Amino acid sequence: MKAWENNIRKVIPYVPGEQPQQSSVIKLNTNENPYPPSPSVEKALLGLDLDLLRRYPDPSASELVCSIAEFYGVTKEQVFAGVGSDDALAMTFLTCFHSNQPILFPDITYSFYEVWADLFRIPYQKQALDGEFYIRPEDYAKKNGGVIIPNPNAPTGICQPLGQIEEIVKNNSDVIVVIDEAYIDFGGDSALPLLKKYENLLIVQTFSKSRSFAGMRIGFLLGNPDLIRYIQDCKYSFNSYTLNQTAITLGAAVMRDKEYFDQCRNRIMETREWVKTKFLELGFSFPDSMANFLFVTHPQFAAETLFMALKEAGIYVRHFKKPERISNYLRITIGTREEMECLVSFLNTYMSENRSESC
Amino acid sequence: MKAWENNIRKVIPYVPGEQPQQSSVIKLNTNENPYPPSPSVEKALLGLDLDLLRRYPDPSASELVCSIAEFYGVTKEQVFAGVGSDDALAMTFLTCFHSNQPILFPDITYSFYEVWADLFRIPYQKQALDGEFYIRPEDYAKKNGGVIIPNPNAPTGICQPLGQIEEIVKNNSDVIVVIDEAYIDFGGDSALPLLKKYENLLIVQTFSKSRSFAGMRIGFLLGNPDLIRYIQDCKYSFNSYTLNQTAITLGAAVMRDKEYFDQCRNRIMETREWVKTKFLELGFSFPDSMANFLFVTHPQFAAETLFMALKEAGIYVRHFKKPERISNYLRITIGTREEMECLVSFLNTYMSENRSESC
Repeated sequence: MKAWENNIRKVIPYVPGEQPQQSSVIKLNTNENPYPPSPSVEKALLGLDLDLLRRYPDPSASELVCSIAEFYGVTKEQVFAGVGSDDALAMTFLTCFHSNQPILFPDITYSFYEVWADLFRIPYQKQALDGEFYIRPEDYAKKNGGVIIPNPNAPTGICQPLGQIEEIVKNNSDVIVVIDEAYIDFGGDSALPLLKKYENLLIVQTFSKSRSFAGMRIGFLLGNPDLIRYIQDCKYSFNSYTLNQTAITLGAAVMRDKEYFDQCRNRIMETREWVKTKFLELGFSFPDSMANFLFVTHPQFAAETLFMALKEAGIYVRHFKKPERISNYLRITIGTREEMECLVSFLNTYMSENRSESC
Repeated sequence: MKAWENNIRKVIPYVPGEQPQQSSVIKLNTNENPYPPSPSVEKALLGLDLDLLRRYPDPSASELVCSIAEFYGVTKEQVFAGVGSDDALAMTFLTCFHSNQPILFPDITYSFYEVWADLFRIPYQKQALDGEFYIRPEDYAKKNGGVIIPNPNAPTGICQPLGQIEEIVKNNSDVIVVIDEAYIDFGGDSALPLLKKYENLLIVQTFSKSRSFAGMRIGFLLGNPDLIRYIQDCKYSFNSYTLNQTAITLGAAVMRDKEYFDQCRNRIMETREWVKTKFLELGFSFPDSMANFLFVTHPQFAAETLFMALKEAGIYVRHFKKPERISNYLRITIGTREEMECLVSFLNTYMSENRSESC
């Protein structure tokens, strides 16, 4: 190691899902939306005054923040907008988990939680999901420095009942409880109504899944105005202007198009329910997903073998080698009906041709 | 304080310059470029495939990174792109200044350095500029955890000779020396040629000033490939995808238009030299700026009084109340020739009408 490397913070980075560039690929590996963003984006883009790009954007991203506040029926002081929910979550970890007590999150969950905790030197304790991959609310009743739970959870797709979420929030009134609702628009019950009752609740959502806008990197937090201001203060100490002008303008246009939003998520939920029936026929088992993906395992076919066979056929899904408990599962994003028909048809053929060998 | 507020990290945030929304204002307070971005932006925007915004952007921002590497004659492994130079700098502080030794930077400089150091709990020692606001290279020869120096410095506009910068880099081979070149394109000598000789050198630049692209939030680092990879690893642990698709595509278009870039910065430098002659006639004194702003003081008129009078006349400039040593200075961005003529003409009238009172 060279002398200048001594003071360098060394981390093991999060590895995002593959982003193959060929357009022929069926991409079911990063939980993107198969439908294009709202048609209102094109209009908003043509209305942009390009000359104004020479100026800094509005640091409060007011136009975007107001569109979110209006959609969810909260005040603009209750909204924080960031560069994807990852930015909103990173700022949340930095701001809200500032103690020596360990924060709590599930052992099987979004793998970035651990990465942020390591990066910011926040102690943590993972709480094991039960045998069916459900969160046990009683695990979150012990002394802690904060709680973060995705609902629905990823990569399982399981949505805990709102009563259990409320129990966890209520039992932890002295710390911040973050409910990561990246996948809530696909059928789960949002914790939004609890915001009126609990000051320690922070909800995270994103434009990347249900709003078909992963390419623009917009996520947001909903919480009590004091908590949001603390997070804003940290954000202003990190980077005053994070959302660029196009994200602000186009994001607001997307948020205002409720009709298109409902159309797309309904189609994805319909397709998901159809895929569930087909996957049961194929012999897969999986938790009852309320997200835009399924988390599947098969008694005869190893996940890694299926992953490779699918990839060779130009169908990308996600396989996590760790933790071991989920190493025989695949996370498969719900694409268009046509894409899912291709997937099912490939699996049908592949599995009947290879069944004898695998058994 | 409520129970949930105990674990909250509380910071005093950086306060960005005012962003008045009225278009009639002459805005000389945030060092933006008075000319619109390259005409290539419109073409690039019309070529965007909006359907693809449903997908995550390329996490390595390869198109943008390659355009930067090509412009500066380095490899793409030597380039890190961020959400403005603030993001690039925040990641640099987080990654490179990870020790118990204090980092060193000037006492009068970009006020965000102190904010990041506080946010990440990095110890620091400010080094006083000399009586003429120059950096004394010998101040940076003591034991430290890293060095950051803007060249030209802000808000003074002073550019230290490259030999002095090399001396500082050379004397600190065991830590990272960051040269913040946000304003280098307005006549200063970049440290770029030193990159071949010194592995501990990191250069920061931005699209916000010389490239008229503050609204898109793009900044970048140039350094040795190992150092860049360490910073990338931290960035991937913070937010995998920071630059959205429009920033990547439009940023690359801007970087490739060298002719327009040269035209704009040359016009700004010409205007700056003209303003210098006029400000001398008005009785101001100021360091010999090599940036797109002047840092001026007047023996008869208090900076704060001028600041208020200008604001009332719809001309926004920047006045820093702290540190006290610069509280009688104004930082004035170089706008178009017409804007600067308005400013000079207003000051001419105002100062002749108010001279007797002020003396």
